[in-house]
Parts: sequence; C-alpha cells; structure tokens
Amino acid sequence: MAKRAAPRAVVLLSGGLDSSTCLAVARRDGFEAHALSVNYGQRHRTELERARRVARALGAAGHRVVRVDLSTFGGSALTDPGLAVPKDRPPGRPASAIPITYVPARNTVLLALALAHAETIGASDIFLGVNAVDYSGYPDCRPAFIRAFERLGRLATKAGVEGRPLRIQAPLLRLTKARIIQLGTKLGVPYRITLSCYDPVRGRACGRCDACDLRRKGFAAAGVPDPTLYAGTSGR
Amino acid sequence: MAKRAAPRAVVLLSGGLDSSTCLAVARRDGFEAHALSVNYGQRHRTELERARRVARALGAAGHRVVRVDLSTFGGSALTDPGLAVPKDRPPGRPASAIPITYVPARNTVLLALALAHAETIGASDIFLGVNAVDYSGYPDCRPAFIRAFERLGRLATKAGVEGRPLRIQAPLLRLTKARIIQLGTKLGVPYRITLSCYDPVRGRACGRCDACDLRRKGFAAAGVPDPTLYAGTSGR
Repeated sequence: MAKRAAPRAVVLLSGGLDSSTCLAVARRDGFEAHALSVNYGQRHRTELERARRVARALGAAGHRVVRVDLSTFGGSALTDPGLAVPKDRPPGRPASAIPITYVPARNTVLLALALAHAETIGASDIFLGVNAVDYSGYPDCRPAFIRAFERLGRLATKAGVEGRPLRIQAPLLRLTKARIIQLGTKLGVPYRITLSCYDPVRGRACGRCDACDLRRKGFAAAGVPDPTLYAGTSGR
Repeated sequence: MAKRAAPRAVVLLSGGLDSSTCLAVARRDGFEAHALSVNYGQRHRTELERARRVARALGAAGHRVVRVDLSTFGGSALTDPGLAVPKDRPPGRPASAIPITYVPARNTVLLALALAHAETIGASDIFLGVNAVDYSGYPDCRPAFIRAFERLGRLATKAGVEGRPLRIQAPLLRLTKARIIQLGTKLGVPYRITLSCYDPVRGRACGRCDACDLRRKGFAAAGVPDPTLYAGTSGR
C-alpha cells in the first residue's frame, strides 16, 4: 500500500511568537504546513522577513506572502501612520476596551485569504495563532468567532460542497503567554528570531509597546530566558 | 430636531452589471453608499475604471479600491494567466459543476474587506451583488453563505460587540438576469458603461465568454435594448 501523504494545513504566520508556535504545533501534529504571511500594510514589515526565517527553521513546506492594503481603510495604530502606538502604559487597563492597535476585521481578512489558499492547495486545516486570554479586547479573537468562521468556510468552498473536511485550528486560544512559550520551547520554536513588537526600531523589538510588555512578562512567568533582541541592548 | 443622517452602507462594486444594480438599490433605499472595488489580480482590470465611472454616475459618497493579490494562489481562469477563459460554449452545461472562472473563496475575501471598511466608517450595511440563480455553481453565492457571513460579521467587529446592527444585503440573490436588468433600468443604472466580460478585448466585452453570454440573453429576455459595446462592433 502506498504511504499516505501528510494532510495539508495552511498556517497563518506573522513571524511573531504566537503564530510561530502555531506553526510548530501544526508540524507536531503531522501536517504538511504551508505558511501564509499577509502583508496588510502594517508598520512592522520587519515581521515578514522574520516569518520567512521561522518558516524555514520549522520545516514549512512553503511560504507565501500575500499583500492586501488594509491601510486603505485606516482606523488602527498598526496601519495608520497618523495614529501612535501606545508606549510604557501603566498596568491595569480594562480588559473589555478595544485597543487602538486593533485592526478592523483583521482576523476575518486573514482567515479569508487562508481559506482561498487552502482551497487552492487542497488543505483541510487552517491554523491561526489567536489568543482569547491576552487579547480579550479584540472581538475577532473569541472562540465564537473561530467557530463561526469554520462554519462559513464550509459553506464558502468547493471542499465544503463536496463534503471534504475544513477545520479552523486555534491551538493557543485558551493558553496564557507563559504556557504558549513553554509549549513552543518544547517544540523547538526559535523565539530569538520571532518578532512580536508593534513598533520595531531598526528591526529590533522596541521593548515598550503592549506586545513587548506581554512577551517579556510571558518569558518571565514561563521561567524561560527571554532571547528577544531589544532595541538599545547589545547582542546580534 | 437635527435632520437624521442617512445610514451608511459599503457597496462592493466590480463595475459589472450586477454590482452596479446593487449600488442603485442601496441609493434607492436611502443609504449613503460607499463603493468598494477590490482589485484581486483579475485579468479584467478595465472593470476598475468602469467601477469608478459607475460610482460617480450613481451618486456614491465615495469609492475606494483595495488591492489583494489572489493570483498569488492561482486556481482560477480569472486570476491565473495559465488557464484559459472558456469561450463559445454550447448551452446545457450542468448547473452543479463549479466553473473554472470560480475564484477560490472570492466572496469571503470581498466581504471580509467590506467588513473592514464598514467597521472603519461606521456602516451598518454591506451590499453584495451575488446571484444564486445564474451562479448556482459557485458555493459562495448561496443564501446560506450570506447568512453565515452576516453572523460572522457580528461576532468579528466592534459594532457587533457593542450591539450595533450589521447586515449583509444581497438584493439580487434570487432574481434572474432579466429581472435584474429591468430593476436597474428603472433605477437609471448606466448599463452602457458597466462591464461584465471575463476577458475584455481592448476595454470592450468579448461577447463570447459565459458572462457575456448571460448578459446578452438577459437583455433579450428583459426586453431592454442591449447597450453593451462588444469588441469588433462599431460605436463609442
């Protein structure tokens, strides 16, 4: 009998900590992983280069970059040059507020593009590194959103019409940052080359935005040495 | 009491017959209509120029073009230069087959981008000119798909979290091409400048692809003179 081919998955890969861990999980689970990075006009384009390196390091079967210019719409500090990324914020901001770094309908756009890629290459699974713990203020990081997109995807595609499976996998959804880091460390994620920062300084993490803050605390809580290269520190 | 502002709608506008009629319906229903054209790497870029003219003619409050390169993925004759657009087909092709001109997850991507725009400008409605009669072979033209996206959109956005309405309107969903043309003619749609063709020749409809065939028969069945400028005929 012929050896059964590995099932295919599309893995949305920003080059950040969460999506890189997600790629490692897809590989662990036996998928032929096709990484997809979306350049949505974000300021931190350095991420795309990091994504390329992470995809190679974790054995992705491919890596594509699709450009969609969400900055056409504005409305987020991550895509609108007129809005500042918040820095050095005091702890205790309310969990229900939607942050200025929220990109309107971002995960819907990302998943729609992943769905197009999945349909074209015949992938049964789409991996997305969303997290409902740390990003409780983002409506499109909630479990109900993931389930609704899965239902939509089955209605929207040839695969669905023909009864083939389509799953949206969000394995980090209910994990704290510390648990994510512990999981990824076990799976060999090269966190040194991942970049989570909202506002990198010459390719390095700024160390002061919400994403840097969350990441730094995550390593501390996980008991894992933080390999991140921060701006203004030495190392290569 | 201050005059109440018109509700806002995002109208997906390709510049074709259906989406142009859809824009006219949104205007008839009292919406401040924000047209959105998506350049998804389709061959018929002439459409975008037509969309601009249609938006102006029908009094859209704005018109944006967002580029997303679905040709990155391939798989459709409309975005993949390696696949030919079928021409001069005999009638009677099975309604259940998914045509080669189907763009994977196209309507999901279009609606995701419209959702991002709607969220940014505070629009309560998104208009999409899909049709379940003529495009019965496209999974993402089915009523269940539209309902699933509406549900998703409410979960995905600030508006949904805050309880504001979000509706996906597909007013042409159950109309034949002839009925669409009769409706649009009543609403003053400038069909002469709309372009439905999958494979235009120097800016004019080829007259031989499935879209041209459907459009030509639609005008005949509607009893409306066909104003389309076909390649190889005179007129300006």
